[in-house]
Amino acid sequence: MLLSIAIGQLEIIPGRPDLNTKAMLAMIQQARNSHIPVIVFPELSIPGYLIGDLWEQQAFLRDCESFGRQIIQASQDICVVFGNIAVDWEKIGDDGRVRKYNACFTAQNGKLIQGNYPYPFRIKTLQPNYREFDESRHFYDCRKLAIDLGTTIDSLLEPVEINLAGNIIRLGCLLCEDGWSDDYSVKPIGVLAKKGVDLFVNISSSPFTLGKNSKRNRVFSKQARETSTPIIYVNNVGIQNNGKTVYVFDGCSCLYDCSGNITANCQPFTDTLQYFSVNIYQDMPAQPPIKIAEDDTIANIYQAIIYGISKFLSATAINKIVIGVSGGIDSAVCAALFSDILPRDQILLANMPSKFNSGLTRNLAEQLAKNLGCLYTVIPIEESVNYTIRQIEDTPILNQHTQQTLSLHISSFNCENIQARDRSARILAALASAFGGAFTCNANKSELSVGYSTFYGDLAGFLAPLADLWKHQVYELARYINNIHPRPLIPAEVFQIPPSAELSVEQDIHSGKGDPLIYDYHDYLFRAFMEYWNRVTPEEILSWYLQGTLEENLHCQPGLIKKIFPTADLFIFDLERWWIQYSGLAVAKRIQAPPVLAVSRRAYGFDHRESQRIPYFSLKYYELKKLLLNKNYPDK
Amino acid sequence: MLLSIAIGQLEIIPGRPDLNTKAMLAMIQQARNSHIPVIVFPELSIPGYLIGDLWEQQAFLRDCESFGRQIIQASQDICVVFGNIAVDWEKIGDDGRVRKYNACFTAQNGKLIQGNYPYPFRIKTLQPNYREFDESRHFYDCRKLAIDLGTTIDSLLEPVEINLAGNIIRLGCLLCEDGWSDDYSVKPIGVLAKKGVDLFVNISSSPFTLGKNSKRNRVFSKQARETSTPIIYVNNVGIQNNGKTVYVFDGCSCLYDCSGNITANCQPFTDTLQYFSVNIYQDMPAQPPIKIAEDDTIANIYQAIIYGISKFLSATAINKIVIGVSGGIDSAVCAALFSDILPRDQILLANMPSKFNSGLTRNLAEQLAKNLGCLYTVIPIEESVNYTIRQIEDTPILNQHTQQTLSLHISSFNCENIQARDRSARILAALASAFGGAFTCNANKSELSVGYSTFYGDLAGFLAPLADLWKHQVYELARYINNIHPRPLIPAEVFQIPPSAELSVEQDIHSGKGDPLIYDYHDYLFRAFMEYWNRVTPEEILSWYLQGTLEENLHCQPGLIKKIFPTADLFIFDLERWWIQYSGLAVAKRIQAPPVLAVSRRAYGFDHRESQRIPYFSLKYYELKKLLLNKNYPDK
Repeated sequence: MLLSIAIGQLEIIPGRPDLNTKAMLAMIQQARNSHIPVIVFPELSIPGYLIGDLWEQQAFLRDCESFGRQIIQASQDICVVFGNIAVDWEKIGDDGRVRKYNACFTAQNGKLIQGNYPYPFRIKTLQPNYREFDESRHFYDCRKLAIDLGTTIDSLLEPVEINLAGNIIRLGCLLCEDGWSDDYSVKPIGVLAKKGVDLFVNISSSPFTLGKNSKRNRVFSKQARETSTPIIYVNNVGIQNNGKTVYVFDGCSCLYDCSGNITANCQPFTDTLQYFSVNIYQDMPAQPPIKIAEDDTIANIYQAIIYGISKFLSATAINKIVIGVSGGIDSAVCAALFSDILPRDQILLANMPSKFNSGLTRNLAEQLAKNLGCLYTVIPIEESVNYTIRQIEDTPILNQHTQQTLSLHISSFNCENIQARDRSARILAALASAFGGAFTCNANKSELSVGYSTFYGDLAGFLAPLADLWKHQVYELARYINNIHPRPLIPAEVFQIPPSAELSVEQDIHSGKGDPLIYDYHDYLFRAFMEYWNRVTPEEILSWYLQGTLEENLHCQPGLIKKIFPTADLFIFDLERWWIQYSGLAVAKRIQAPPVLAVSRRAYGFDHRESQRIPYFSLKYYELKKLLLNKNYPDK
Repeated sequence: MLLSIAIGQLEIIPGRPDLNTKAMLAMIQQARNSHIPVIVFPELSIPGYLIGDLWEQQAFLRDCESFGRQIIQASQDICVVFGNIAVDWEKIGDDGRVRKYNACFTAQNGKLIQGNYPYPFRIKTLQPNYREFDESRHFYDCRKLAIDLGTTIDSLLEPVEINLAGNIIRLGCLLCEDGWSDDYSVKPIGVLAKKGVDLFVNISSSPFTLGKNSKRNRVFSKQARETSTPIIYVNNVGIQNNGKTVYVFDGCSCLYDCSGNITANCQPFTDTLQYFSVNIYQDMPAQPPIKIAEDDTIANIYQAIIYGISKFLSATAINKIVIGVSGGIDSAVCAALFSDILPRDQILLANMPSKFNSGLTRNLAEQLAKNLGCLYTVIPIEESVNYTIRQIEDTPILNQHTQQTLSLHISSFNCENIQARDRSARILAALASAFGGAFTCNANKSELSVGYSTFYGDLAGFLAPLADLWKHQVYELARYINNIHPRPLIPAEVFQIPPSAELSVEQDIHSGKGDPLIYDYHDYLFRAFMEYWNRVTPEEILSWYLQGTLEENLHCQPGLIKKIFPTADLFIFDLERWWIQYSGLAVAKRIQAPPVLAVSRRAYGFDHRESQRIPYFSLKYYELKKLLLNKNYPDK
């Protein structure tokens, strides 16, 4: 039997059950008009997913239930599968609040299908509590319910039987993580398959992560193949955030046939209603397989960032942007990205030179503005910075005890930070408010990792769109942007100058000086600290260094380490310096950083829980260090 | 039998197993020298508790194990009960990483006591996942283990038997939340008691929360009484943070005898080794009961904040502080607090007047500095603010398309924010770095609730010590500070002037104008939004307003609402205005706010998960609003 299924890959507005329901009702109507017998919506399609502690507002829960009833009522002549919060007002969760389930509802002809289940909905079996997820904070899972009811998960898990013109179709309802059971002792798909399933439906709310779709396709294909059962995967689009980190949702809903091939799919980042045909009751593919492109390229990053920025602007009702442009690569990429989103006269680029800024970078900033066709202004900071230095140094400070006065001295380092703050907190913030918009934070992930930025200076902004990209990815993105436009937007010389903050004579680009970061190495080192599933510490780094496998383990250029660090002393000095920054002051800076737009497998913010602590080196690290320095490796 | 037990109420340094172990070894040695047969340390005493994702570093886990072995080896002639992370390297957790348990170890004569348990340690049964806790992110709990082993929690839970000179004592080992089982279907104390326990030991790492000790004493007393078994409660001191929120740990370790009376206790916020005597085998108290004071007074707040600031300064190695003093109450309290901690010449108070600042508040700032004996300076911002306005307004902006120039206008509102940023990001930050220290954020919880503060302005700082206090609590704290000093530190007039930012003529204190917040009401309204266990929304507020129970439910002054809002229209206008701020722009500001020192039952940060969203009003809210406005209540 060939079954048509409508996939409601809708854009979910988190915390707006009214708007989401309205969109769902329209899709249901459309599918019914097209005589499609089944429509499937994503996980938590009514409330949204990343909504913080909104789950603790009972008024919100009641509304989600109420809108859920509207969907159920709308299921006349169509079967609707959708995600919503399910509340058991008679029971409590572990927190003493009313008990909530992340649930999958199946409605037909105005009624929910219950079967033998204790509730007229199915609840999520596996709840992720890693990365940005913290479902156990809010939802009661199937494992707890089984203990509570004195039964087992296996006996609780049952397919949902729907009747389509006399044909009984057994749906295996899965909620997102239920399909990712590799690391769990419970395997919902296996349990359900044994009980007899004609079609698995995985409703998800799964944020975009570089390369995640490819992984999902491998995992889900295998499940379809092993159970000889097709799987429909339905994911939402839109953006949702947990405050510090903004996630884009790419949708990419698709159909895996019983052989594990993808035979239909929805376009990424597209709010769409689409109809899939799936073969039920027979192990035969309905359609030829589709080739899905890998999703870990710079093109995917570009698409995710453009989508994320656009949606973030709509969500915050900001449509005018000020960007400080230095002539360097980060601000150039930031400006180019926004110019692909907003009308050019709603983007104001500001160059804010001091005496340390070279004529070259000033010209590059201007050239960039011309290429982009944005509004452009030059606001020097020399006078104001001097004014601040004089004011601080010349104003007497009175010691109330001794009645003596003292005065403070502004060092060259203090002066660097004064410049950075003058640019952001004095000029960009004032420009933005007068312009009627917001200003961006152009920081990248390498800088954010070690706090190479100034509080209330270049760390400030309403959104940090590049803060989940390592420096080398910023360059890659810049090249990509230049390639997809008729002529390059970012001037060629921006790629050639050494990265530099140009805040002192020590950072003169003409003498080749610049940032203290050696991105070819540090990008990869910090990535190992931060992104690896088992976080890498200096212990592993030294151990790999000793074994000669460091470049291999970091996936950076072979031979690089020896070139940068002629001696082990220098290598260790550098490692300790950045580890202390990474786990020390940089944490304080990240606490006050703007929201980060996430694309990687771990972005700063909620997916990287951290605390201000005294940095720590492990016991074995000290052993290895001693060994290395005694050996005088690698000179010996 | 009268048993002596040493309580190691130590200051735990989070993420420093080396330092914690050293302190524990010293206490073990001291207890042994005093011939005390048992010593008990807090939960996770080796690694610390709030350490973010440090649990994902295997090097760190190995060190915790290694230091744990040192403690075990040191248990010669003494029984040591301590908390540590326990790693099962052969198994995985739900996240695919190595499996970790939050565990209680009991060691004697160099060996761990295992009994019939599957591991030579006991693991936590109940893991909190509410408030600032997210244990399921990292630890595998007893419920999952029971399912995994195909057994039940009840059969897993077993007392630990220790042999003291031939006497077998059955310890009921509990980890923190195990003693707070009211909302859980599993009750570890009840299960253990049935199996026979001579003494319960609850090892905890429990952050201070106003009034929590009183609640614990009620809960734990009841448990001791109902099981006729004494309970030893051991908690650590020190501070730990999860980035955005800094928690103080008050210790307050104590002994509940078999009648539920507290017969011995450790002083709050004190790193101490103390010996308790407990009656084993007989239902007879060993000592007369002690009266424990309630812990929800302003004195407790003062103590917690002073402790928190002091420890935060040590942890961040900051010993010089700059505080902007306006003559208002918040900055005065902040300055007074720091002057109770640091030498007066390490505190620099800066008054930064503009033309909008009254002579009165300038004088009050100076008077405060004199009273405190701190360093004092006056740095006017009039010139620099005017410079910024002129620079922004006079610098042409080029439209690259039309080649026309435009210019921006600075509104009065823009100018307010320019002043605030000029003070913090230009002056205070520069002063702090030149002075060699940091500057404070003086924001209170009322302001933080609705974003009544300027990004990179008064929202900036290294720590916000008052940000968990409502405005009325700031006044209360000010009075308390004045009372505990030989003569008042905060000038009397500071209490009398209306709270005002003095950023425009609209905020002139002499005409009685000032903040748009009516603290007598809004403090209580925002507290209901934010702190109530079931978060209050405008729906409940309107419903209470209609019922005439609003003041009662908010715990504010009776009759207040009608006095402030003569009509329902005005009431609703105000409610919507602040709800939109609270759930809208204020979220963006909190994302970039400094760390908050927590004292209340919910502080901003990790205990208040939130996302930037479009504010939402519930269906019933709109119904009630319609009802109210039609009724023209309460004028009709």
